[in-house]
Amino acid sequence: MDQIKSYIASHKDRFLNELIELLKIPSISADPAYSKDVLKTAEMVEQSLKDAGCDITEICETKGYPVVYGEKTVDSKLPTILVYGHYDVQPPDPMDLWTSPPFEPVVKTTELHPDGAIFARGACDDKGQMYMHVKAIEFMTKNDLLPCNVKIMIEGEEEVGSDSLADFLEDHKEKLANDIILISDTGMIANDVPSITTGLRGLSYVEVEVTGPNRDLHSGIYGGAVPNPINVLNKMIASLHDEDNRITVDRFYDKVEEVSAEERAEMAKAPFDLEDYKNALDIDDVYGEKGYSTSERYSIRPTLDVNGIWGGYTGEGAKTVIASKAYAKISMRLVPHQDPDEITELFIKHFEAIAPKGVKVKVTPHHGGLPYVTNMDSLGYKAAAKAYEKTFEKTPIPERTGGSIPIVALFEQVLNSKTILMGFGLDSDAIHSPNEHFGVWNYLKGIETIPYFYKYFTEMNS
Amino acid sequence: MDQIKSYIASHKDRFLNELIELLKIPSISADPAYSKDVLKTAEMVEQSLKDAGCDITEICETKGYPVVYGEKTVDSKLPTILVYGHYDVQPPDPMDLWTSPPFEPVVKTTELHPDGAIFARGACDDKGQMYMHVKAIEFMTKNDLLPCNVKIMIEGEEEVGSDSLADFLEDHKEKLANDIILISDTGMIANDVPSITTGLRGLSYVEVEVTGPNRDLHSGIYGGAVPNPINVLNKMIASLHDEDNRITVDRFYDKVEEVSAEERAEMAKAPFDLEDYKNALDIDDVYGEKGYSTSERYSIRPTLDVNGIWGGYTGEGAKTVIASKAYAKISMRLVPHQDPDEITELFIKHFEAIAPKGVKVKVTPHHGGLPYVTNMDSLGYKAAAKAYEKTFEKTPIPERTGGSIPIVALFEQVLNSKTILMGFGLDSDAIHSPNEHFGVWNYLKGIETIPYFYKYFTEMNS
Repeated sequence: MDQIKSYIASHKDRFLNELIELLKIPSISADPAYSKDVLKTAEMVEQSLKDAGCDITEICETKGYPVVYGEKTVDSKLPTILVYGHYDVQPPDPMDLWTSPPFEPVVKTTELHPDGAIFARGACDDKGQMYMHVKAIEFMTKNDLLPCNVKIMIEGEEEVGSDSLADFLEDHKEKLANDIILISDTGMIANDVPSITTGLRGLSYVEVEVTGPNRDLHSGIYGGAVPNPINVLNKMIASLHDEDNRITVDRFYDKVEEVSAEERAEMAKAPFDLEDYKNALDIDDVYGEKGYSTSERYSIRPTLDVNGIWGGYTGEGAKTVIASKAYAKISMRLVPHQDPDEITELFIKHFEAIAPKGVKVKVTPHHGGLPYVTNMDSLGYKAAAKAYEKTFEKTPIPERTGGSIPIVALFEQVLNSKTILMGFGLDSDAIHSPNEHFGVWNYLKGIETIPYFYKYFTEMNS
Repeated sequence: MDQIKSYIASHKDRFLNELIELLKIPSISADPAYSKDVLKTAEMVEQSLKDAGCDITEICETKGYPVVYGEKTVDSKLPTILVYGHYDVQPPDPMDLWTSPPFEPVVKTTELHPDGAIFARGACDDKGQMYMHVKAIEFMTKNDLLPCNVKIMIEGEEEVGSDSLADFLEDHKEKLANDIILISDTGMIANDVPSITTGLRGLSYVEVEVTGPNRDLHSGIYGGAVPNPINVLNKMIASLHDEDNRITVDRFYDKVEEVSAEERAEMAKAPFDLEDYKNALDIDDVYGEKGYSTSERYSIRPTLDVNGIWGGYTGEGAKTVIASKAYAKISMRLVPHQDPDEITELFIKHFEAIAPKGVKVKVTPHHGGLPYVTNMDSLGYKAAAKAYEKTFEKTPIPERTGGSIPIVALFEQVLNSKTILMGFGLDSDAIHSPNEHFGVWNYLKGIETIPYFYKYFTEMNS
């Protein structure tokens, strides 16, 4: 495997340019206006799997966007690694905050990325991290170093809830049979502090609509006498947290995993500087549930955040109107044992219950995702840890993060196999934000580290 | 004056078509994109004053949109009536709720307007009501029936706070000298229940911006640990009303005129059916300050309404983002003795005070307006009442309404003269809403009634 260093050295410009071509296509799954681009991206990804040396590749249709699949079988007696990633990206707005266009990738150096970072929507989440695997596979096939069988599935609906994937897994259980699932769609603590994500929060995402009068009204003539849906929505949302910033949705905490004091103490050892955290976000104070540290709030505790709100006149100047409707998108991050569907039900019941007379309320569930915790004693975790030790010369820190990859819990349910999350991005890479980027060093380090996981996982299984 | 009936009969098609031409121009003062249309409208209005027989007309430049001025002097010894109106209109959004395009006027019959109503933005507020005066003047000049001097000023910034008008009045005190000011920019109770507006609420309008983190963040990675500006804004806005729906802004009620039980009893005599009111708006309950009736809530009580709110992801689908900023437009309706600037100051102080640590708050004042009460014993009121009695064959009801016409209080301050509000629109005309309309019957009835005001006011002054 050690030729990987020299292979990267002689191909890294091509590796970078191939990723840049992929990043130029706005594969925004949330917006139907971009469906052609999403499909075009799927075709590019399939071609890249062919070029990487897969024996079989196909674009598998689903009810939504297709799943790109490829495989390379060495020997059926050897273990099989299933790689997962996604080729769709988040919408880029707000556009005006991008320093360069989101779909015109450029390499710029930053304080944290002195060797340069690729700036583009999807650079890190997940085109960049997904493509590390494609290039790692290329290296192993081209040099006859692939130590086991590999299957790779890249979906196009991750950013909108992977709606079609459950059916896809059910329909292709045989084809997808594997010994371990490998994903790079998370981050690590720092370039000199490698980490492996051992826990992920789940997600419940809803859209709410509050209707007051049947039409927009003049606030002078009606103001103060009719239910203003914006004021009402604000009151309802405000009531979803109590003064300790605990969520008030009835029975919300019933199944929440209470992490032991010991485990909390263990996690607290991960390097974290509150002042750096606040400075990086330019906030003079953090904000969250009473009784928990900042890193606990975003990892082991469930949360409720409004992701978007709109209603009434939002243009220039002043319009004295009372809107007929107000809307909000609200997501709840869930921790182990909380079930997204159950939480969504609880939310709907609660939200309808707190609506005052005079308004009508409609709650529409978007996607959800189960929380997930992985086992540090598993071969997969040990092989991954050893791979990081080889290329980073450091033992990675196990980390629980706040993000959700609903698919991970689904894999365990349907394919009955565990997942290893080898993330090479940084929190500061601004995924889901303007100016998303991915360090060139991180990109190449991922390509370098992945083959060692194949090596060690195969050895540990024999 | 009695020829007015026959004059209308023989010219009503032209009266209608002239108004329709005026309504075709989108003179939206709130949106700079329409500045050319606003200026074009000013030119059309000046031409209409020439055609109506004014000796002098001009387009008076201001810092903002111009004021169109005209006058016709009969005899300096006779009283002078100053007519005020505005040629700018509200933005039409939400566009999708219009049954016909807002700037393609059409006449359609409705339950309340069996003779048809003109549907277009500005049909009632205020192009239609303003143009009644132009046609009434035309009638009097063409038939040598103008009993006094008339001055008319039509501004183009009423919907954005008449920012330039105070200076204009100061600069032209002499030119604008008058004995009474006549305005049609309000409504009446019903076509068979004429009313004269004797009270208007004032206005304080602000835009607030709440900033949390310095960039949009992934709600999974940061959710629950940082101040979400939308959640915070919702909590802040919710706290602006207490459980009795009284406004919590410190010292907000200090100067509020407490209306006597007697006067409240008098007002309660105006016809009002709560069930009809709720049915017309399709709400199963009204909503407002404890201890006051619906008609009191929108007339003699101050209010606070959110007119618009926005932040985060508002597009299709689901985006798990924590926004950096959230915004709202908030207006407060004021009652006699409340000063808009003072209230705006109180609001800013209060809003900054309730901001939690971790967010930054910015409050930008938009326009304000003083509340106004007119005197039923004045000659102006008596002349107006007599005019209604002549053409409606009913004594008009004095009415306090919720809307604001900041200019009215300004007139009294700067020009030291009282204003009479002769409104011919209906609350159901949907001004500031989609499908704004103005009854053809109301339009012509206004043209018929106005000349009698001139007649009686001149007689009462001699």
